Amino acid sequence: MRKIVDKLKFSAGDLVVKEGSFGDSIYLILSGTVEISKNVKGKKAVIAILEKGAIIGELSFIDKKPRPASGRAISDVEIGVIDKEFIDSEINKMSYEFSLLLNALAERLRTTIEEYAALKAEHERLKEKIGIASRAEKP
Amino acid sequence: MRKIVDKLKFSAGDLVVKEGSFGDSIYLILSGTVEISKNVKGKKAVIAILEKGAIIGELSFIDKKPRPASGRAISDVEIGVIDKEFIDSEINKMSYEFSLLLNALAERLRTTIEEYAALKAEHERLKEKIGIASRAEKP
Repeated sequence: MRKIVDKLKFSAGDLVVKEGSFGDSIYLILSGTVEISKNVKGKKAVIAILEKGAIIGELSFIDKKPRPASGRAISDVEIGVIDKEFIDSEINKMSYEFSLLLNALAERLRTTIEEYAALKAEHERLKEKIGIASRAEKP
Repeated sequence: MRKIVDKLKFSAGDLVVKEGSFGDSIYLILSGTVEISKNVKGKKAVIAILEKGAIIGELSFIDKKPRPASGRAISDVEIGVIDKEFIDSEINKMSYEFSLLLNALAERLRTTIEEYAALKAEHERLKEKIGIASRAEKP
């Protein structure tokens, strides 16, 4: 049913998509687990754990901006590559009004990912600081 | 150009959309500022500030689930109501593959909003706790 044109295999630790890179491939996870994370000032902020059936890369495909986050296999992973020419032809048929809606959705997702990752890194730093502070209080 | 079928006016403090309610109207901010927030265990977590040109309601329109967050006018606000029947007719023309992509985008946005709001509330609580702790240390 789904227009899968290729299959890719990754092992635990392999990078599936790289934050900041350009690329508009759309991947469907066929098996395994992918950890989605952003680098925030040198610190990794995990923002999602994706499993079978999840799609990777839909945001950059739609807004043509760099990958918002990295995806790393945390088990053996099999990926189906979705036929983007087929989807592109559908996007080209879209009305201005509908593309507005789609772009609004994409922009909101990108902004929310940015803010979530930044807050996650800040929160981790704060927790570490408190951890250090309470250890320092001990004799 | 945009298919606006109605206009609505709100004053500062008015609720534009209510978290948890059902409704698939799509709004375009024509003027003014709307604060988007979620209620997390009785605490308000502000997740976005939207201005002129931003769209409100696109997520619930697409996934037909309750509003993920509330929108409250924080100034005089003028809203354009977008013709959803027109957009609906486009969604109906979409292929299965494209609707998969659109739903993946919507699902990712909803999940990220949930997690961002929850973390924001937790972070605020932690900051308050530290604030109280450091005040308590003072003689």
